[in-house]
Amino acid sequence: MKARVTVYPRREILDPQGKAIRDALSRVGFEGVEDVRAGKSFEISLGTQDPAEAETTLRQMCEKLLANTVVEDYAVELIRP
Amino acid sequence: MKARVTVYPRREILDPQGKAIRDALSRVGFEGVEDVRAGKSFEISLGTQDPAEAETTLRQMCEKLLANTVVEDYAVELIRP
Repeated sequence: MKARVTVYPRREILDPQGKAIRDALSRVGFEGVEDVRAGKSFEISLGTQDPAEAETTLRQMCEKLLANTVVEDYAVELIRP
Repeated sequence: MKARVTVYPRREILDPQGKAIRDALSRVGFEGVEDVRAGKSFEISLGTQDPAEAETTLRQMCEKLLANTVVEDYAVELIRP
């Protein structure tokens, strides 16, 4: 089973990378960009075919390794159930 | 309109960061991880409400700034049309 995990800075945390990208987009001529949040994305292939088990495992991966939950939020999506 | 842009190393390109994460997951006890691709994710809020215009703009942003198309692929998804 394939899954996608996205990790973003928490809403209440400043995101200097996102701000830098927003400013850079405006400098190269893209108007009307209101906000950019910059995060990480992981495409993970797991051996299991059980969606519930996969989701539990992926959440544990986020808590343990993929995200710093003090300052980051994560989301797990199963791509191919 | 809100959109999500994901940027990954091209399939045929080695992804050392993804490999390092796969190895790290296995070291902390997660078995059965077949593959990890590590990429970037950008959540972008645009002023426009026109989905076609938004998609065109986002693709131009990827070509010009967000992705290095020599070694990276990108995908654009509109979240809130």
